[in-house]
Formats: sequence, structure tokens, C-alpha cells
Amino acid sequence: MLYLVRMDVKIPHDLPADVAAEIKAREKAYSQQLQHDGRWPHIWRVVGEYANYSVFDVASNDELHELLQGLPLFPYMDIQVTPLARHPSAIA
Amino acid sequence: MLYLVRMDVKIPHDLPADVAAEIKAREKAYSQQLQHDGRWPHIWRVVGEYANYSVFDVASNDELHELLQGLPLFPYMDIQVTPLARHPSAIA
Amino acid sequence: MLYLVRMDVKIPHDLPADVAAEIKAREKAYSQQLQHDGRWPHIWRVVGEYANYSVFDVASNDELHELLQGLPLFPYMDIQVTPLARHPSAIA
Amino acid sequence: MLYLVRMDVKIPHDLPADVAAEIKAREKAYSQQLQHDGRWPHIWRVVGEYANYSVFDVASNDELHELLQGLPLFPYMDIQVTPLARHPSAIA
Amino acid sequence: MLYLVRMDVKIPHDLPADVAAEIKAREKAYSQQLQHDGRWPHIWRVVGEYANYSVFDVASNDELHELLQGLPLFPYMDIQVTPLARHPSAIA
Amino acid sequence: MLYLVRMDVKIPHDLPADVAAEIKAREKAYSQQLQHDGRWPHIWRVVGEYANYSVFDVASNDELHELLQGLPLFPYMDIQVTPLARHPSAIA
Amino acid sequence: MLYLVRMDVKIPHDLPADVAAEIKAREKAYSQQLQHDGRWPHIWRVVGEYANYSVFDVASNDELHELLQGLPLFPYMDIQVTPLARHPSAIA
Amino acid sequence: MLYLVRMDVKIPHDLPADVAAEIKAREKAYSQQLQHDGRWPHIWRVVGEYANYSVFDVASNDELHELLQGLPLFPYMDIQVTPLARHPSAIA
Amino acid sequence: MLYLVRMDVKIPHDLPADVAAEIKAREKAYSQQLQHDGRWPHIWRVVGEYANYSVFDVASNDELHELLQGLPLFPYMDIQVTPLARHPSAIA
Amino acid sequence: MLYLVRMDVKIPHDLPADVAAEIKAREKAYSQQLQHDGRWPHIWRVVGEYANYSVFDVASNDELHELLQGLPLFPYMDIQVTPLARHPSAIA
Repeated sequence: MLYLVRMDVKIPHDLPADVAAEIKAREKAYSQQLQHDGRWPHIWRVVGEYANYSVFDVASNDELHELLQGLPLFPYMDIQVTPLARHPSAIA
Repeated sequence: MLYLVRMDVKIPHDLPADVAAEIKAREKAYSQQLQHDGRWPHIWRVVGEYANYSVFDVASNDELHELLQGLPLFPYMDIQVTPLARHPSAIA
Repeated sequence: MLYLVRMDVKIPHDLPADVAAEIKAREKAYSQQLQHDGRWPHIWRVVGEYANYSVFDVASNDELHELLQGLPLFPYMDIQVTPLARHPSAIA
Repeated sequence: MLYLVRMDVKIPHDLPADVAAEIKAREKAYSQQLQHDGRWPHIWRVVGEYANYSVFDVASNDELHELLQGLPLFPYMDIQVTPLARHPSAIA
Repeated sequence: MLYLVRMDVKIPHDLPADVAAEIKAREKAYSQQLQHDGRWPHIWRVVGEYANYSVFDVASNDELHELLQGLPLFPYMDIQVTPLARHPSAIA
Repeated sequence: MLYLVRMDVKIPHDLPADVAAEIKAREKAYSQQLQHDGRWPHIWRVVGEYANYSVFDVASNDELHELLQGLPLFPYMDIQVTPLARHPSAIA
Repeated sequence: MLYLVRMDVKIPHDLPADVAAEIKAREKAYSQQLQHDGRWPHIWRVVGEYANYSVFDVASNDELHELLQGLPLFPYMDIQVTPLARHPSAIA
Repeated sequence: MLYLVRMDVKIPHDLPADVAAEIKAREKAYSQQLQHDGRWPHIWRVVGEYANYSVFDVASNDELHELLQGLPLFPYMDIQVTPLARHPSAIA
Repeated sequence: MLYLVRMDVKIPHDLPADVAAEIKAREKAYSQQLQHDGRWPHIWRVVGEYANYSVFDVASNDELHELLQGLPLFPYMDIQVTPLARHPSAIA
Repeated sequence: MLYLVRMDVKIPHDLPADVAAEIKAREKAYSQQLQHDGRWPHIWRVVGEYANYSVFDVASNDELHELLQGLPLFPYMDIQVTPLARHPSAIA
């Protein structure tokens, strides 16, 4: 089951640089693990913004919320979720 | 080069049903041809709305505009284009 | 799996009264059938507006879209879907 | 009498972690007491957001305001209230 | 129980003048009856707009919706309802 | 001459509690004095929000601005003013 | 007493050209009469739009509403009124 | 003196095709004449939309309004004007 | 050449009072000098807000930007500029 | 390939003045280098705002993102990117 997710990262300017770096490193590892196991099939950078559009493939709303809430950057992001359905013109 | 495109279809209520049906049939054929040749890799229905999120893979802004302007439903859609870049955490 | 759905009805003023009445009658029957089978557990009127907030309980995004697209009033409504998850403080 | 309430939690980043934890614990207890006595029949997490949609069942606008203002997280939330009425198609 | 209600009137330009006049006459009578029985204590014109801010005093959300839905101009208005509570600084 | 005024209070979280309390006490006294002399005939709490809708009855735009600017909470509020006129359907 | 007023003209495309011309001629005469008697001291065109910003100088909210409601183009305009007060830095 | 101008074209669906074609032909000629005389140095299509961003180089606000108001498509466009100034980092 | 300018002042709460007072004193002197030399013909307070609407009369976009950027409060204001043109109904 | 880019600079008030000055100096050098090599053909100041509209000429979405992310002011700016295509009426 697919969802389009937009994440806007807003790290406060007074967060110490090393704390921010450590969070980002964990975020990257977390994201790549989910990409490898197939639940985060797409992640794209929005040109010019500290933001991404992603597609998630999970079994339920609850699973998606758990994944997103577990993101190390979760406290510093605005997240918007759009549930997707199969399009009647899709060939795949 | 990837772009996220959202299309909201707004067919006027007084458009004759057969005209609408004919346009939609041409739209479907047009979309499937672009999906087959690889330039329209993803099309998803937005749940609950007469709208889709799509990903296009084209060589330039001009090529994307030409494709979108050629959509049979183009005069009846609101279209919003977001250019995408490679995300540093992407594994693919 | 739960979703909060807001529907705003916008019937064009030039739709003949009997056509509108017939659509609304079919809408009511359709809604009550889904309420009876448990997939539309809540429907509330928004005070002062020709609109409702509803809760749907379905197995997937696709099933929800199919139900909503089948609403007789679908062509005359703006629909907004919010996926819901279990709240950690919920007792039920 | 029912109301739909959306709460968006925005805890400032410089609030000490133990203070925040203590407030959240009191919030949970407060919420569960109102769920048990029937005045807060539904609370759902909005997927991907630190927010909830809730339904309250109270005797008056004044009672609802008193309940909401008493939330331990009240100073850190944006709250939006929508009064609900019985829907003519509702079977319950 | 008080509610602030804003009504924006949007009569379509192609509604025949006599039909519009008859609806407005019924609207005025309906409004004045509710003002007389105490359920519509205030109605003010918004300067420069075909709109009003009103205060309603009713026993429940359901009663308010019934009153508003019964307005002869209801199909031609955008209505926004804000539930009000007693203010702790109010002297009355 | 009447005006509808909406005030949203946004006290910064780092304002010392006793300073805030002292400002609120002065705000209450200031408001009640204006209610007593008839220039602030209505003040209602917006349900669920730290906000109020008020009606002011003053002789001019300048007098209203002077009153509002004198509010002890003025530096911590977003204020929106809507000038009101007599409604042709009003009975009072 | 001064007010800033923005008017956006939206004449429907199916209004016959001669009807529109007649309304605009009456609008111009009406406006110039109010300019001459001092109650409409400023009217400026918004560059690129069929809209104007105007300043009105009247004795009350009611007088302003009466003037605006009397505009021949009133049924075809969106009007927004901002009450103005004397600025403490103004030299005039 | 430079201005950035965004134009969104919204031709009503019931405008006869030959009328629309004639207007568009005049629009193109009008635009190219202004491009040739240097007052409309840039015109770009917004990808995916029936809209353009343009830069105008004129002597005054009045001259710009006159040019825009003279566009054959003026009655069918939403136009937004942003005045531009020299940027301190510009090398040209 | 005229421009309508709206300025919303947002002084941070942690700016020392004497610094703020000194900036406001310089702002007032700066504004009055421009009013005296005719380039800032109107300045009005927006009722209920720490904001003003002003009219500037300058020779170019560049001159206006230089004046606005020179405002002592410039770093603490949101500024919105609307270029104005002569209105065909204006008598002056 | 052209893009219109709007940048709004929002430097936090508590950033030390010399740090801000150093960042701006690097920003200017960075911008001028890209102007010289042809990839940043236009940069204009938005009148009255600490913002600019720019045109970039690059080979791909990825190249544009890399350029923008490399801006010394990038952490302190809101950036909005609009992809542009050739306009059919353009003479150049």
C-alpha cells in the first residue's frame, strides 16, 4: 500500500553542529535500512529546498506512522502524508 | 531527470458525456504510451480525489511542458510541477 | 484501518431539482449500506455547512478510493482524506 | 453533543526533557480519565504528525472549553474545534 | 449557548431578479422571527460586503444546524460557525 | 459605531510566570473598566483557543485604535478588526 | 474618518457588452461625484489588475457601507475594507 | 525600470474556438511587437501551466499598466506584478 | 510615481527596551524627513495592529527600494509593495 | 535550461553581526562567480523585501540543486523554484 510523503526539515539554528550531524547520520542509516527492506522505495530531494518527497510501501496506516515517528529527524520535520491508490491508466 | 507532477481534473459539468468519454479514452492511450516508452514511470491516484501524482523522466523542462500540454485533458486540469534531484541518502 | 474524510457538497445551481433529488436518494442508500456493513462507522454533519466529517474503516487505500469514487455525489464533492493511526493514549 | 477537535502539539525545543515528559504523562492520565467517563469517546493519531483528531461529547460549549483549557499540553497546542450535528443519513 | 456565525451571500448572477427578491423577502421574515424569539440576538452587516456576522443563542449544535439549514438563502451562502464560551473577564 | 475584533494571545514561553500573571491581571481590570463604561459591550472566549471575539462600541477608528493599543497584552496579541454596519433585517 | 478600500472587479463574461458599458458609465459618474464632495479623496489603479485601492473619508461605518453598496458595480466586485487611524509619525 | 509579471490565462470553456483563436493571434502579435521595441525583454512559459513569467522594462507604473491592459487576453488573465530593483550583487 | 506600501512591525521580544526605543526614534525622524520632502505623502496606522499603510511618491523602483531599505526598522518589518497607476475615473 | 528562483533571506536576529557579514561576503562572491560563468544570468532585488528573483541556466535539476545548496546563505533562506520552458510567442 503506497503513500506519498513530503518532509520539510527545519533544524533550529541553535542546535549544536555535532548534535545535528549525529542526528543526520542516524537518519541516513535509518532511511537506507528501510529502502533496503523495500518499505521506502523512493526518496527524492525537492530542488532548492531542505525537503524530500518519498514513497512508502507499508501494510497499514499504523505501520507508516511508526516508521515516520521513528525517524531521528522527526522532531525537526513537518510531514504531510497523502494516501495513494492504483490509477486506472497505470500499466504496471 | 525527474519531476513530480500533481494533476487535478476539473471537467465542467455541462461538457456532454460522450465528449468527456472520448477525451478520457484519448488521455488513457496517451498516458500509457508515455508509460511504455519510459517517460512517465509512475502514476498514482490520490485517494478520494479526481487527481493523480505522477513522476516524469524527461531530458528537459521543454520536453516536460510539451508532454503535459499534449495531454487531452490539459484544458481541464490544474497542474503543479516540482523538479526533483537525487537525494544523498538514496540507495538506488 | 481508519481514515477521517471530509466531504463538501457543491451541487451546481442549474442541476434540475429532480435529478438532484434522485442522486441524493441514491447517496443516502449507498451510505446506509456501508454503515450497515461496518465500513462507514461514523458520519456527522458539519454545523452550518452542506458538508460532513466521516470515519471509514477499510482494509486498504484502494478499497477506500473505490468506496468514495462510487458515491453518487462524487462528481459534486470536494473530498479530503486523512489517514489515522492508533493513538498511544487511547483506551479502546 | 459532539465536536470534532484537531490538536497540533508544538513543544518548544528548549523545554527541558524531564519537564516535557512530566507534562505528557499528566496529559495521558487526563485524557484517559475523560475517555473513561465518556466525554472523549475518540482519539486518533494523524499519520506522520504530532497531532490528533478527537471527538468530544459534552453538554455545552463552556464545558468543552473547560476540558480543553485543562489539558496539560494546552499551552503547547494549536486547537481547532468543529461543532457536529446529526447527519440525516446516519443509521445510528 | 452562543455561536458566532459569518454568512457570505453569493447569489448567482443568472438567478431571475424576482426569484431572488422573493427569497430575500422570506430570508428577512425568517431572520426577524428568530430575532424576536431570542435565538438570533445579533446580526451585523460587514462593511463593504454582502455578508453578516451574527450571534445565535440556542440549546445545541443540532438546533443551530436546523436553524441555519432552514435559511431561505442557505443554498446561496458560505457559512462559518465558531462556538463561543464565557470569557473569564466578562462582567455580564 | 460597532466593530468586531478578534484577539489571539501568544505569550512567549520564556516570559517569566509572574510577569505574565501581572500583565493578565492588568488586562482583566482594563477590559472590565471598558465593559463598564459601555465601549466594550461583548467579549466571548473562542472554544478551545486562547483567543476572544469582542464587540467594541466607539465613536471613531482613532478611538478604537487607542483602546486596543492600550491593552496590557497588546504586544503579545494578533488583532483583527472588522467594521460593522447596521443590518437591514435587524429588529433592534 | 479614513478607510482603505480595495475593490476587485469581476464582471461575468456573459454579461452583454452594452449592459456592462452602461454600468461602468454610471460607476464613473458615481465615483466622481463622491470625489468632488470629498468623501472619496483617493482612487488608484492597481497595476496590471482590474482593481483599485481607494481611500474614503466618511463619518461612520454605516455611511461607508451605504456608499459602497450604492456602487453600480457593487454586485460584481470583491471589496475589502481596512479602517485607518492617525499614525503617530504623520506630520499632516 | 524592471517588473516581473506573472500571467495565468483562464479562457472560459464556452468561448467559441474561433473567437479564442483570433484573440490568441492578436495577443502573439502584440507581444512580439513589444519584445521587438525592447519593453518586454523576457517571456517564459511556466512548465505544465497555461501561464507565463515575463519581465517588462518600462518608464513608469502607468506605462506598464497601459501595456498590460492592452493585452488582447487581458480580460481572461490573472496578472500579478512585482516591481524589481537592482541587486547589489549583480554584475551586469 | 505612486506605490502603496504595507509595513508590519515585528520587534523581537528579547530586544532590549532602550535599543528598541532608539530605533523607533530614528524611524520617526527618518519618516518625517521623507514626508517633508514629499516622497512619503501618506502614512496611516492600521486600526488594532502594529502596522501602517503608506503611499510613496518616487521616481523609480530603485529609489523606493533604497528608501525602504534605509528604514531603521527595516530588519524588523514585513513589507509589501503594490505599484499604483492613475485611475481613469480619478478627478485629480 | 532555465529556472525562475525566488529567495527570501531570513537571518536570525541573534546571529552575531560579524558572522552575518562574513556569510554575506561569501554569498556575493559565490553569486558573482556563477553570474560570470553564465549559469546565473539574472538576479533582481524584490522592491521593499530582503529577497531576490533570479534566473538560472543549468543543464539539469541536479546541477541546480547543487548550486543552490552551495549558497552560503542557504541555511537562512526560503527558496522556491519554478521550471521554465520556451514560450511560443518569444522572439529570442
